[in-house]
Amino acid sequence: MTEGGARILLGHGSGGKLYRDLVRDVFVAAFANPVLERLDDAAVLSTSGRIAVTTDAHVVQPLRFPGGDIGVLSVAGTVNDLATAAARPLALSAAFVIEEGFLVDDLVAICRSMAATAAAAGVPIVTGDTKVVQRGVADGLYITTTGIGEVVAVHEVSAAAVREGDVLLLSGSVGDHALAVLAARGEFHFETTVESDCAPLWDLVAAALEAGGAAVHFMRDPTRGGLATVLAELAETTGLGIDAEEEAIPVLPAVRSICDLLGYDPLTLANEGKMLFAVAPERADEVLGALRGCPLGARAAPIGRVISGHPGRVALHTVFGTRRVLDMPVGELLPRIC
Amino acid sequence: MTEGGARILLGHGSGGKLYRDLVRDVFVAAFANPVLERLDDAAVLSTSGRIAVTTDAHVVQPLRFPGGDIGVLSVAGTVNDLATAAARPLALSAAFVIEEGFLVDDLVAICRSMAATAAAAGVPIVTGDTKVVQRGVADGLYITTTGIGEVVAVHEVSAAAVREGDVLLLSGSVGDHALAVLAARGEFHFETTVESDCAPLWDLVAAALEAGGAAVHFMRDPTRGGLATVLAELAETTGLGIDAEEEAIPVLPAVRSICDLLGYDPLTLANEGKMLFAVAPERADEVLGALRGCPLGARAAPIGRVISGHPGRVALHTVFGTRRVLDMPVGELLPRIC
Repeated sequence: MTEGGARILLGHGSGGKLYRDLVRDVFVAAFANPVLERLDDAAVLSTSGRIAVTTDAHVVQPLRFPGGDIGVLSVAGTVNDLATAAARPLALSAAFVIEEGFLVDDLVAICRSMAATAAAAGVPIVTGDTKVVQRGVADGLYITTTGIGEVVAVHEVSAAAVREGDVLLLSGSVGDHALAVLAARGEFHFETTVESDCAPLWDLVAAALEAGGAAVHFMRDPTRGGLATVLAELAETTGLGIDAEEEAIPVLPAVRSICDLLGYDPLTLANEGKMLFAVAPERADEVLGALRGCPLGARAAPIGRVISGHPGRVALHTVFGTRRVLDMPVGELLPRIC
Repeated sequence: MTEGGARILLGHGSGGKLYRDLVRDVFVAAFANPVLERLDDAAVLSTSGRIAVTTDAHVVQPLRFPGGDIGVLSVAGTVNDLATAAARPLALSAAFVIEEGFLVDDLVAICRSMAATAAAAGVPIVTGDTKVVQRGVADGLYITTTGIGEVVAVHEVSAAAVREGDVLLLSGSVGDHALAVLAARGEFHFETTVESDCAPLWDLVAAALEAGGAAVHFMRDPTRGGLATVLAELAETTGLGIDAEEEAIPVLPAVRSICDLLGYDPLTLANEGKMLFAVAPERADEVLGALRGCPLGARAAPIGRVISGHPGRVALHTVFGTRRVLDMPVGELLPRIC
């Protein structure tokens, strides 16, 4: 990232004055809100009763990539996990593990990204922690965000609610995030215009819930392992079959080109701003329309259906007219993309 | 830690099969509870309304030390931060950043420590995340825990509630944790019997609240920066003065010896199983009695008082009969002790 300027010292990870100065000058300055500003060991919130909790460690490398940075990612990823539980984001915590020598200006820039993304999602960052480790035992910065949300749906939104006949809607194109990070890492020997899709999706999910109500049975953001993993898990968990149409799954031309060239399957690539919905067929059109009415859902599409046939498995009807079983990847070909 | 056995691969950090196997065989096996077993992206909980949230990143080195390990620490530290807000622990999340090559058996052992500590504190670990980074960019394992608690006190427990005349009660001896970790790191050229005090303190705090009710004005666990930092912050935040008696502050003989030998001040050393209370004078004896009735509070002692004199500052009456201003340390002499 940038050169020169003040750097993080081991002393910034103490409980003493350097630590307090860092908290005030960087974190509180960026995330300004009354709960955080109390600087208590725990933040106190009021809730209506049913809450959702999720946590994500972020180790993406490089820290900045086309379309975002670790700050955007850490907020969006957590907001999106809350959204899968139909939970409006209420508060975030953020814990930083920082490598000694990290530039304070880069930390400030990342905190500004977090703050802007959190503001866009309407959620305050209410508490946090910072540890500093010696040079060489962290890759600049790791951020763990935890989200607390208020569950707004009165019906159950989970794999257990999925039924035969449900239509699978995808909010947009797949593969953008993973390829943007790989490109930023210099792993391709050519230029690309692919940008990460990382963005908080609560507004999109709220629109889907408003349009579909209890007909929205399931939501999941296809991050690590990609859409293939989400579909395979859904089939396995429900014991139902899934038919998916390869041609219906949006893939940007630039992503398609790289995948064709290098042999990646876009369905196994990570996304950070997409959501898959399983919706009862009688309301699928309304939900699709609501998604398309959102800036982040303009390319939403029906990509498949839940069936009673081939239970526990996903059949992908390919663009070549053949059918193949879609399974989750075994390991990780592309580490540290989130 | 131990030698031989299966090791963590980068693929364990994927969203694929290796990842799922790790989650089921290690984390779900250790933390078994119905919310976690759903393996949803977000855990859903019911609460009574007022909740507390806190997060802590743990980077202690070595991972195992006399009296505990990073697993005990990660649960106890978070439960204790919730306790400072008079919040009964309701749920924990745990996010792991693991270095490629880490022994799976060591991860299992650490998860068992977490599970045992969480069980002792009566709190389930309901959600989590795991990322794997390449060899050399983490020191084995970092764990970030976030706690959600239900606030049980109807009165405000915070620095803002502290009044002139309040008695300061400390639940036990200071300095044990920091010295146990330093000894385990081989930084002393002699043997010591000092063990970390790391333990969850909710039962102790609940006993204090039951005995003292609204007379319990403030609680804080003196971790990084030690008791000196907590007292200096309290004086600064309240604008009141604090008189503390050095002789009254419990220090174990083995800790005292090392401090005398090496020039450490036990008041600036980190603790992971101690709590400082500010209590209205008319109820201080009841609260002290309640603390002493708890296994973790047997050595509880009154160590000072909040006064109107020397506002914003802490005066320590030393064992030599002199008085010195007690301030928080500027940086960190002892990194990575939590």
